[in-house]
Amino acid sequence: MSEPKIIGIIGGMGPAATVDLFAKLVEATGAAIDQDHLRTLIDNNPRIPNRNDAIAGRGPSPAPHLAAAARGLQQAGADFLVIACNTAHAFQSDIEAAVTIPFISMIEATADAAGDVDRVGVLAADGCRGAHLYEHAFGKRGVTTLFLDDETQAEFMKLIFRVKAGDMSDAVRRRMESLALSLYARGAKAIIAACTEVPLVLSADALAVPVINSTDALVARAIAFAKA
Amino acid sequence: MSEPKIIGIIGGMGPAATVDLFAKLVEATGAAIDQDHLRTLIDNNPRIPNRNDAIAGRGPSPAPHLAAAARGLQQAGADFLVIACNTAHAFQSDIEAAVTIPFISMIEATADAAGDVDRVGVLAADGCRGAHLYEHAFGKRGVTTLFLDDETQAEFMKLIFRVKAGDMSDAVRRRMESLALSLYARGAKAIIAACTEVPLVLSADALAVPVINSTDALVARAIAFAKA
Repeated sequence: MSEPKIIGIIGGMGPAATVDLFAKLVEATGAAIDQDHLRTLIDNNPRIPNRNDAIAGRGPSPAPHLAAAARGLQQAGADFLVIACNTAHAFQSDIEAAVTIPFISMIEATADAAGDVDRVGVLAADGCRGAHLYEHAFGKRGVTTLFLDDETQAEFMKLIFRVKAGDMSDAVRRRMESLALSLYARGAKAIIAACTEVPLVLSADALAVPVINSTDALVARAIAFAKA
Repeated sequence: MSEPKIIGIIGGMGPAATVDLFAKLVEATGAAIDQDHLRTLIDNNPRIPNRNDAIAGRGPSPAPHLAAAARGLQQAGADFLVIACNTAHAFQSDIEAAVTIPFISMIEATADAAGDVDRVGVLAADGCRGAHLYEHAFGKRGVTTLFLDDETQAEFMKLIFRVKAGDMSDAVRRRMESLALSLYARGAKAIIAACTEVPLVLSADALAVPVINSTDALVARAIAFAKA
């Protein structure tokens, strides 16, 4: 087997979600000794401007910062890139234009991981929805996407920012579960945890409906790509 | 306040200990929004040769790899460096010679964190003991260090390698607690978790004797230094 590829993670959006991605990557590698693990370079840059505000036209673009992080990781030796943030995939073309190494999409990995379903409920941040990332990815696959209505979406965003502030309390977990169940009640055959903060407070076994975790989907694809 | 400094983490020794350091850094920063967190660059390089074997004269030196990681992190923008591995501090001078940015020692941070005690029990890997890192750090402070005897040290090393292989079972936890208690029985006023794998299976509240966690000590110092 050839030497595994070096993974570059553009992180910090938010930092706890980056820790979660890194932890799952180490755990899922399933190595018996240090030396069998994958080399991973991380730029955890929480100062990248808010993606949701930029997509809504209310704030500066994170694109130059994401491109700079991508270039820095390639320069440091990364063989391919991932981002620990679904919404930031709205700027994927800016990242790809900045480097000559492949970019592995969390959106595509997650849409593939959903498997054979005709309708999914997507828990995604405003910017991720505004950029139609999952609508397009599932649309290509002939899968209908359901999203929260305006009122519950506003509540969802408040929960996401509570998680970013470190609140992973039972109250937050229960509210996240009930938002997921509202999509199930409307006919979703699977719930897509399409924001990297969601799995921090919504475990796959908390609900009777399957939960597809975007972090897990990206981790599985990144490990396979690194070892290919 | 001036812009906080960028932290560079030389990691991968082992990867789970690096995840733990990163997680504690994010948690201890206590920021309300992404943008208030600290920028952190991580080179999680598990392929760095085994430190214990090198110090025992049984394997290649990790020094050139540690120096290369340090240079890469400085080049990527780190303002100071830390290592998520106590034993690797045996090569601190090689790292410092490779860069022009400060290096914050986990050994010194931990010895300071032990506070006003006259005798400590140190749970440290073979290489960390062989290089006398804690013996010297506590010696300077007038504190006596107790270590495991040869037989229990061999068992300790087996536990560490089980943790590195992902085994954080109750059996491993109970054995680690009993090794810590054997040092307490010999008169240690505090137990030093002087290997970054130890806190993964020994929580501070598991024992009646204070446990000084080297990861926590380094995190506290790194945050203070970044914000100074």
